[in-house]
Amino acid sequence: MRTGVWLMGARGSVATTSIVGALALRAGLTGPTGCVTELPELRGPALPAFTDLVLGGHDVVATPLTKRAEALAEAGVLPGRLADALAAELAAVEEALRPAPTGGTQADRVAAVVRDLTDFRERHRLDRLVVLNVCATEPIAAPHPAHADLDALRAALSGPDEVLPPSSLYAYAAFTAGCPYVDFTPSTGARLPALAALADERGLPYAGNDGKTGETLVKSVLAPMFAMRHLAVRSWSGVNLLGGGDGATLADPAANAAKVASKQRVLGETLGYVPQGDTRIDQVEELGDFKTAWDLVTFAGFLGTRMRMEFTWHGCDSALAAPLVLDLARLTAAAHAVGRRGPLAQLAFFFKDGLDAPTHSLAEQWTLLRDFVAELHREAADEQPR
Amino acid sequence: MRTGVWLMGARGSVATTSIVGALALRAGLTGPTGCVTELPELRGPALPAFTDLVLGGHDVVATPLTKRAEALAEAGVLPGRLADALAAELAAVEEALRPAPTGGTQADRVAAVVRDLTDFRERHRLDRLVVLNVCATEPIAAPHPAHADLDALRAALSGPDEVLPPSSLYAYAAFTAGCPYVDFTPSTGARLPALAALADERGLPYAGNDGKTGETLVKSVLAPMFAMRHLAVRSWSGVNLLGGGDGATLADPAANAAKVASKQRVLGETLGYVPQGDTRIDQVEELGDFKTAWDLVTFAGFLGTRMRMEFTWHGCDSALAAPLVLDLARLTAAAHAVGRRGPLAQLAFFFKDGLDAPTHSLAEQWTLLRDFVAELHREAADEQPR
Amino acid sequence: MRTGVWLMGARGSVATTSIVGALALRAGLTGPTGCVTELPELRGPALPAFTDLVLGGHDVVATPLTKRAEALAEAGVLPGRLADALAAELAAVEEALRPAPTGGTQADRVAAVVRDLTDFRERHRLDRLVVLNVCATEPIAAPHPAHADLDALRAALSGPDEVLPPSSLYAYAAFTAGCPYVDFTPSTGARLPALAALADERGLPYAGNDGKTGETLVKSVLAPMFAMRHLAVRSWSGVNLLGGGDGATLADPAANAAKVASKQRVLGETLGYVPQGDTRIDQVEELGDFKTAWDLVTFAGFLGTRMRMEFTWHGCDSALAAPLVLDLARLTAAAHAVGRRGPLAQLAFFFKDGLDAPTHSLAEQWTLLRDFVAELHREAADEQPR
Amino acid sequence: MRTGVWLMGARGSVATTSIVGALALRAGLTGPTGCVTELPELRGPALPAFTDLVLGGHDVVATPLTKRAEALAEAGVLPGRLADALAAELAAVEEALRPAPTGGTQADRVAAVVRDLTDFRERHRLDRLVVLNVCATEPIAAPHPAHADLDALRAALSGPDEVLPPSSLYAYAAFTAGCPYVDFTPSTGARLPALAALADERGLPYAGNDGKTGETLVKSVLAPMFAMRHLAVRSWSGVNLLGGGDGATLADPAANAAKVASKQRVLGETLGYVPQGDTRIDQVEELGDFKTAWDLVTFAGFLGTRMRMEFTWHGCDSALAAPLVLDLARLTAAAHAVGRRGPLAQLAFFFKDGLDAPTHSLAEQWTLLRDFVAELHREAADEQPR
Ligand SMILES: NC(=O)c1ccc[n+]([C@@H]2O[C@H](COP(=O)([O-])OP(=O)(O)OC[C@H]3O[C@@H](n4cnc5c(N)ncnc54)[C@H](O)[C@@H]3O)[C@@H](O)[C@H]2O)c1
Ligand SMILES: NC(=O)c1ccc[n+]([C@@H]2O[C@H](COP(=O)([O-])OP(=O)(O)OC[C@H]3O[C@@H](n4cnc5c(N)ncnc54)[C@H](O)[C@@H]3O)[C@@H](O)[C@H]2O)c1
Ligand SMILES: NC(=O)c1ccc[n+]([C@@H]2O[C@H](COP(=O)([O-])OP(=O)(O)OC[C@H]3O[C@@H](n4cnc5c(N)ncnc54)[C@H](O)[C@@H]3O)[C@@H](O)[C@H]2O)c1
Ligand SMILES: NC(=O)c1ccc[n+]([C@@H]2O[C@H](COP(=O)([O-])OP(=O)(O)OC[C@H]3O[C@@H](n4cnc5c(N)ncnc54)[C@H](O)[C@@H]3O)[C@@H](O)[C@H]2O)c1
Ligand code: NA
Ligand code: NA
Repeated sequence: MRTGVWLMGARGSVATTSIVGALALRAGLTGPTGCVTELPELRGPALPAFTDLVLGGHDVVATPLTKRAEALAEAGVLPGRLADALAAELAAVEEALRPAPTGGTQADRVAAVVRDLTDFRERHRLDRLVVLNVCATEPIAAPHPAHADLDALRAALSGPDEVLPPSSLYAYAAFTAGCPYVDFTPSTGARLPALAALADERGLPYAGNDGKTGETLVKSVLAPMFAMRHLAVRSWSGVNLLGGGDGATLADPAANAAKVASKQRVLGETLGYVPQGDTRIDQVEELGDFKTAWDLVTFAGFLGTRMRMEFTWHGCDSALAAPLVLDLARLTAAAHAVGRRGPLAQLAFFFKDGLDAPTHSLAEQWTLLRDFVAELHREAADEQPR
Repeated sequence: MRTGVWLMGARGSVATTSIVGALALRAGLTGPTGCVTELPELRGPALPAFTDLVLGGHDVVATPLTKRAEALAEAGVLPGRLADALAAELAAVEEALRPAPTGGTQADRVAAVVRDLTDFRERHRLDRLVVLNVCATEPIAAPHPAHADLDALRAALSGPDEVLPPSSLYAYAAFTAGCPYVDFTPSTGARLPALAALADERGLPYAGNDGKTGETLVKSVLAPMFAMRHLAVRSWSGVNLLGGGDGATLADPAANAAKVASKQRVLGETLGYVPQGDTRIDQVEELGDFKTAWDLVTFAGFLGTRMRMEFTWHGCDSALAAPLVLDLARLTAAAHAVGRRGPLAQLAFFFKDGLDAPTHSLAEQWTLLRDFVAELHREAADEQPR
Repeated sequence: MRTGVWLMGARGSVATTSIVGALALRAGLTGPTGCVTELPELRGPALPAFTDLVLGGHDVVATPLTKRAEALAEAGVLPGRLADALAAELAAVEEALRPAPTGGTQADRVAAVVRDLTDFRERHRLDRLVVLNVCATEPIAAPHPAHADLDALRAALSGPDEVLPPSSLYAYAAFTAGCPYVDFTPSTGARLPALAALADERGLPYAGNDGKTGETLVKSVLAPMFAMRHLAVRSWSGVNLLGGGDGATLADPAANAAKVASKQRVLGETLGYVPQGDTRIDQVEELGDFKTAWDLVTFAGFLGTRMRMEFTWHGCDSALAAPLVLDLARLTAAAHAVGRRGPLAQLAFFFKDGLDAPTHSLAEQWTLLRDFVAELHREAADEQPR
Repeated sequence: MRTGVWLMGARGSVATTSIVGALALRAGLTGPTGCVTELPELRGPALPAFTDLVLGGHDVVATPLTKRAEALAEAGVLPGRLADALAAELAAVEEALRPAPTGGTQADRVAAVVRDLTDFRERHRLDRLVVLNVCATEPIAAPHPAHADLDALRAALSGPDEVLPPSSLYAYAAFTAGCPYVDFTPSTGARLPALAALADERGLPYAGNDGKTGETLVKSVLAPMFAMRHLAVRSWSGVNLLGGGDGATLADPAANAAKVASKQRVLGETLGYVPQGDTRIDQVEELGDFKTAWDLVTFAGFLGTRMRMEFTWHGCDSALAAPLVLDLARLTAAAHAVGRRGPLAQLAFFFKDGLDAPTHSLAEQWTLLRDFVAELHREAADEQPR
């Protein structure tokens, strides 16, 4: 099953790490640490092999991949020798990258993206092509009446307005080209009624939003712990210090607000009440691609006794995100292959703010994921010609 | 269903907090924070109500309960006004406490304990009586051939040797008196083949060991998080600073060793490998009944990138333990009522080192517990006279 | 030397703790922990004894002191028994409190304050009276041309405008009444040229601003440590979570800005460069009178190696501030007694943002303070009649 | 002033980093971050320039320096490119390293060391040669009567016994060869009356013990902070997790005990009382050349209010130690040049357990150091021929 992986934001940190990682796995130069789909509980024939993945993407900047890889090696995200060893393979991916279309109406840009996707699928004789958004986080998008209705949206796109934010425009183009779409960012992406209708019309699955790689990951196990023990969380305050491209974007208050909202959801929904406290995101350029998050939780126990816990998480965001991007590409391709459509709530495990997520407990999300993958393996086996 | 709760170590911190808490719940003076059996998912008719609980116990010291309660109030474990408001009820429990027997052969001491248990059950016309061990942690017990065989044990107890450590002697006495036994400590308790045989002979359930209230609780959600994300934990080091009675006991290296072993088990069994690092327990008298644990976890992600997390837990051990003691009393009584026997592996949720525990993941233990309690409710309903 | 201590904001947390503490010290019910002036290096005859202090003050609210004291006891700031034991003494101070004047022109309010101060000094036959500002933090004050010139200010005060923020109005009134003035808050206070001129005219000493009790205190020893070791601090980020009255005030962004600015100054001035990173102040009501601050420092060493340190400070702000308020009252009174005038730069030890502070290193500030106090003792001894 | 720097333990982490660093500084390939003697307050003509330093040493192992440098680069302690750029210079130092003598009597080994030192000094026409001990920490040495008396010692060294631990044997050899001696380790070194007598006889200065680079450094500013604020430290507990060669050595309980004792001294001597709590040192190989220390301090303030602070220090020990080794070499050479003799108490700034250290406060030690260096500059200038 030759599977294309098309990255929107293909020259960013997460994308570059995903690309180098996929090439390294394909070449047997690294192991599957961090790849959830390589755990014994999930591994299996329904998922495209790493050797079946073909990479491409769009970006608004033109920095060569090898230059981005060098910078990531310098920053301790990648071993430098890997990028060297994979120079030829990286050059091949470089070939496959396209500039994100600009100018014209939004309809023009959709057409250009669809053309790039279709070309790529044909040139590489792909069985299917998954589009994943790893662009910089957008500001919260302005509402527009056409968001609610597919016909209205089609009409509006040909007009002069910027109706859709880029993430949604990419979702629109992906669906139009017959590709499943995954949004790893907190941006709007496919989360508009008109886009749900389009995915439905085309019978396509999609997933999102906002990869869960740090503080929220920890919250998604600690908040259930407090809940299961019937302890009363009184406050939960957090600060996220991050450098890197994403840090710079989040210095913009509107983008920051989008991110914070998806971070706090897990608490209220897991605990059944919203404790005091806020999550802050601050940029500290010096931290590079690493992030330090600190959280303070105060809670009351039996007879009202006050207690507290704090944690510090010091993670490399791109190293945490990249294997999940590959997991999502494989899982979404497998779901598409057996005819799944609509939002993939079973992938909530990967997201801060999973589409239709029935739970924010990581353990429960894991059970959902495991059962879902078992089904995919079963269905894939059934579809095999005997 | 009048249910007796007999505490071995009845004048200790955990016991005193459990007693004050049970009385406060019975009197409606406090809420059920920290009581797992009061969560909507577990609540139900199979469990004895707080108003059905009757408390008693043994201890080797004679410090009055009210004095212990005052000290705990002074230390911030209990609200002082509670102990005042419950003076009469505390006096009644004081009446029911018995000195732990000393002198004579171990068989003599068993007989004395059995007599106290039987008297208590009769005087209060109890439907059943659960024995819970919350004594100070014992040193690791010396092995003895009679531990492996019930007949040999019966014979040996009448001899001059100290064949059983106190926790096991109490388990022996409880089973002999027809009482289920729960061990909240890391001591040997019922974990000897001869005692398993006795419980089986008498058709009694039992549970243990070592209540999970702090660092290990957190480990039991964080270790699965790393496992589910396929991250490679390289080292996990911890230090536990504790004051209080338990801290003093653990200053004894042998008792400490017993405790540390039960703490580290969760890692190896959850991750499938044992990371570097140790857990330390140090006494710092000044911390009183509070404990501060600090853990450092270093881990590798995709492409080998090194990351780290640390957490500090600042908990009041007795306030965390007491509601679990009451939960265990209720659950074990309910299990006994519907005829369960043998080790209650489904109560692993409560223990660092659960008997026959099939998993160390708190979330999986929760699922086991929830399903188990649902069965108890069903079976209890079936047994009701119509 | 009967010395009056007049607190602006006399019913707030800091003021109430200062009052209860002063009464407890006077009555021998507590020790001098936290009182810098009771250290062997500073103690001596120039300082008024605790038994010589007479307390009074203004506030805009009328909540009885005993009620504030009870709330502080409930919150764990004060031992409840102290307030009980000091009921009579507290009632006497309650008598001495006056409502902060409102209405009329600012000149009218100055006159009212001056009247209250003068009455108090006379009624209690005080040798001198020190005014200390512990009111809630004000927003940064709007500039006004009259701030620069004493005559212009005198004229403007009689006009309809609010020329001075309350803290400066109190400084004006204090100086007018012949009283030294200390500002424990980050508000403007005496920091206006016109007020400096007035203090000079009256030959009065003054001090401020913003008591140094938590994160900044720690910074004032850690930043010099990095400097003395020639380590390159790359980023210093902090978050302060605080409840209490002060937390609520600082939820107001303008007040917050005033506080943050005085917190960051220590870094730039000690290191000689400003590292990346910010300090955040967030209100978390649940923390009550306690504050938790977390700071992350990243630094580079020899050959560029990157390292990091973090600290968490969990302090009770009022308990830390109150003894310093008493120290400042004693020191400023002693300085006044021997004829010091103008800003007391030697008191920088106590402030985040000390007036004319020649250094932000706590150790250097300590040396200044110690030498200053030694001089006061010497001068006081010289002035004694033989 | 051509100055030799002779490192005992010359192939260890600290030594290798010191050598690479000195060469890099000499070649202008790195800046002086971490070098205290390059601060504006200390810099000056009395100190030998980096270009005047000539490096040599002894070790018991023969691993090539370039191999150790590569390992340190791999571990993130050194930039790999530095070792490459300095290949020729490193080879020259490699030439100058000698195997630590073994076999024979201790007098034979002393003679061998003295020969190596004298050869080195002559071959490189050095004005002086400083010996610095950076060997692995020794177990606490067994007492021996000859330690107290130089003549007895001379006699005993020719006998069959191991009278002196290696660090003291090296001090003996250094003094015999007319070289000042600095001990950067917690081993015995020059701290024996017989060695003091020998240094005195030869008119030589010496310094030690145990470089202060992490937790103790932080303690030496935080403990004075608590003292200056008259806060009552109730407990101070610490854990040091370290990998590297030093970590392995400290897994030996006797070596560990030596290190812990020198770490705790600062508290008792600064505070005037010893708070509860211990310092632990644990080896976690995975941490490599980095160390993580965590400390918890609990303290009481005014009216007894309980508060706490914790810090985590994540440092690269060799990167912190190496510039101090160079500082000590320069300072001790300068002291020797102007005729200082005996223990250099003014270098306490650099040590956990400074010889004759009059204070454990880093700030006070800084003042001593600054004044001392100013004197050296003055005396050096006076000695210049005009
Ligand atoms: N790394 C993580 O752990 C993590 C977790 C959750 C979400 N995310 C999200 O992943 C996204 C990528 O993060 P990153 O660290 O790689 O950021 P980055 O800034 O390094 O990369 C973003 C890339 O997107 C490109 N881009 C921006 N707008 C575009 C557009 N309209 N069309 C095409 N390309 C565009 C940029 O040129 C850049 O190359 C962010 O939205 C971030 O919030 C990351
Ligand atoms: N508090 C927690 O969070 C927690 C968690 C897990 C396990 N535990 C375990 O619970 C136990 C009790 O802890 P605690 O803090 O109450 O300790 P504690 O020292 O306050 O109380 C122990 C009591 O047991 C009594 N005792 C000792 N030996 C006895 C014997 N042979 N027979 C009868 N009584 C005896 C003592 O006199 C004392 O009153 C400890 O073993 C501890 O390890 C506690
Ligand atoms: N506690 C600390 O560690 C610390 C450290 C540095 C500075 N401070 C400063 O001390 C001040 C007091 O802190 P707090 O915790 O007691 O606050 P608080 O809110 O408890 O008390 C402030 C009091 O000031 C009164 N007040 C407000 N405006 C007034 C006015 N115009 N005239 C007279 N009274 C007025 C209020 O009614 C209140 O009673 C704050 O400005 C705070 O920033 C405190
Ligand atoms: N790195 C720091 O921050 C720091 C701080 C204080 C003290 N120290 C001390 O510095 C010393 C060196 O630390 P390291 O990390 O370089 O250790 P290391 O183990 O890497 O190096 C020690 C070297 O000493 C050599 N050695 C051992 N015994 C010897 C002997 N008798 N004669 C000659 N050589 C001998 C070893 O072969 C090894 O090469 C240790 O004693 C350590 O406690 C280090
Ligand atoms: Na921390
Ligand atoms: Na912490």
